[in-house]
Amino acid sequence: MSPRIPSIVLATLLATPALAAAPWPPLPEVPVPADNPMTPAKIELGKQLYFDPRISGDGTISCNTCHNVMEAGDDDRATSAGVHGKRGGRSSGTVYNAAYLTVQFWDGRAPTLEEQAKGPVTNPIEMGMADHGAVITRIGQLPGYVAQFEAVFGKGGLSIDNFAKAVAAYERTLVTPDSPYQRYAKGDESALNEQQKRGMQEVLNAGCTACHSGAAFAGPALPVGTGFYQKFPLIPGSAYDAKYDLTSDIGRMEATKQESDKNMWRVPTWLNVALTAPYFHNGSAATLDEAVRVMAKTQLGKDLTDAQVADIVAFLGSLTGTFPKQEMPRLPSLEGKTIVPADKK
Amino acid sequence: MSPRIPSIVLATLLATPALAAAPWPPLPEVPVPADNPMTPAKIELGKQLYFDPRISGDGTISCNTCHNVMEAGDDDRATSAGVHGKRGGRSSGTVYNAAYLTVQFWDGRAPTLEEQAKGPVTNPIEMGMADHGAVITRIGQLPGYVAQFEAVFGKGGLSIDNFAKAVAAYERTLVTPDSPYQRYAKGDESALNEQQKRGMQEVLNAGCTACHSGAAFAGPALPVGTGFYQKFPLIPGSAYDAKYDLTSDIGRMEATKQESDKNMWRVPTWLNVALTAPYFHNGSAATLDEAVRVMAKTQLGKDLTDAQVADIVAFLGSLTGTFPKQEMPRLPSLEGKTIVPADKK
Repeated sequence: MSPRIPSIVLATLLATPALAAAPWPPLPEVPVPADNPMTPAKIELGKQLYFDPRISGDGTISCNTCHNVMEAGDDDRATSAGVHGKRGGRSSGTVYNAAYLTVQFWDGRAPTLEEQAKGPVTNPIEMGMADHGAVITRIGQLPGYVAQFEAVFGKGGLSIDNFAKAVAAYERTLVTPDSPYQRYAKGDESALNEQQKRGMQEVLNAGCTACHSGAAFAGPALPVGTGFYQKFPLIPGSAYDAKYDLTSDIGRMEATKQESDKNMWRVPTWLNVALTAPYFHNGSAATLDEAVRVMAKTQLGKDLTDAQVADIVAFLGSLTGTFPKQEMPRLPSLEGKTIVPADKK
Repeated sequence: MSPRIPSIVLATLLATPALAAAPWPPLPEVPVPADNPMTPAKIELGKQLYFDPRISGDGTISCNTCHNVMEAGDDDRATSAGVHGKRGGRSSGTVYNAAYLTVQFWDGRAPTLEEQAKGPVTNPIEMGMADHGAVITRIGQLPGYVAQFEAVFGKGGLSIDNFAKAVAAYERTLVTPDSPYQRYAKGDESALNEQQKRGMQEVLNAGCTACHSGAAFAGPALPVGTGFYQKFPLIPGSAYDAKYDLTSDIGRMEATKQESDKNMWRVPTWLNVALTAPYFHNGSAATLDEAVRVMAKTQLGKDLTDAQVADIVAFLGSLTGTFPKQEMPRLPSLEGKTIVPADKK
């Protein structure tokens, strides 16, 4: 090794060929909208709201119930459980790194984290509040929240839009930029083991990156609000369609009512994908192995060998990041009464 | 003021008359059983288990769901919600300062925190695991837990008894020794305001301390496993019996099958009582004001004035403690699959 080339530079040079082929740059700084700057007080308020089950019809469901940040940002279930034991139809996506997505929800029906945050609170099978007015009335009973809304957003600051801004500001802290792949992408060739490197090459060879490109492995860099969608199954007719019930949910068409959006879905991120089983919009694939096999068949018409699947799964495991340490929030209390209404008899 | 008497001593002397009358010593150190010493690793393991909803039948309910330590250690509901939307029959008690109680559950059916921790996991309307074997099988799928059990309890350390020990060790950190009353009890006369002092005197005059004595305001110091029970309503026949459905739950008799235990209940703590609405074993009293009014009538045969109620409620508010700051736990993950079984179709 020439002493004239510092080892760090050499490492970068050595890494360059693989990096040139890999369409995934390191994760950039989290994009923050100009009208919702992040401040410690806003993030803290958003964290409290995110964890507060009292902002649901029966006081049982918080954002964290389905997007559990203590684990991988989802709920380990095929589809989620809402108020009064109701079951949703789609699998909850991880909140980690959602800040990098250009549209939210499986069908992309919300352009921003702020818009997304307003959805589940009034969804009758999720948090089940009657309407946004009811959300604000509920929160407004807690002086500890009202004071924080005013401190963060000014007098009269308690509103559904500011609720959404605070929650979104907190969610923008939920990113995992430090993973083996991220270290590799920044030039540390040793951050991936041999199997992971083989898996990366299999992914590139198979063509998965036609969709799973970009820093978040969820498509190319697009303006916020512009979704990157793909049909699933793109090549219908395999046995998987029926086995995993892939077509009965019409996907984005439900939001747009456009026939051309039938079975179209936002391309999901691969970041931390090893920890977010079960898989697909309906959570029908129990394991990552099987999800890889199904995607290769239905999207690329390929039958992978077990060895190829194992290598790709190993590579996907290298996208598991380091989760941020957090202090547990303390939720505001009310003296002498509850803000959760009694169940109807 | 004589310069020969230091002000701290004087303050103590001045406080003595009230303290002498008040049957509530400052909270002592948390009692720790000899066979379950507290260690940082055990407490950390217990915290993870406490927050893990995957240790429930459908992956939706953790200890923290009903005993939410981010607020006052309970769930703000009359009775709790369990797996599959089921509803319990009794109001969840606060986990804060449960370490000071000599028996657990409303009916005292568990002598220790360790025994208590084994109950809800297999209760079909709470966490709904089939049996303790299923709990251990579920936990055993997560290598991150198995390694911690072995590090804390030795080889083969994963067992239901050690699960309970870890959870109990964590729960013994959930105490609130710093409240206005606690400061007052240690000699700071100014820690209570005038209304709170009036309320304290009302409590003493009314006779509430026949039951709510002791450092935890839950009865006299008794050996662990020995409960302090009281009949509720002690004086039946008031309009409250029907209004709040006070007698249909037979209380401790359900556990012991003894007629003499009918409508007998463990005397609940007053610590943080201002934050644990709604009240009573069935959560039927929505406000602390009303709970005070009902207790005075049903237990002491007294009709309190609104002013007396307000003073007593102010005193009870002085028992709200300072909650410990905590780091959020990170739950062990499994790569590529979930440990939560799919819902039955």
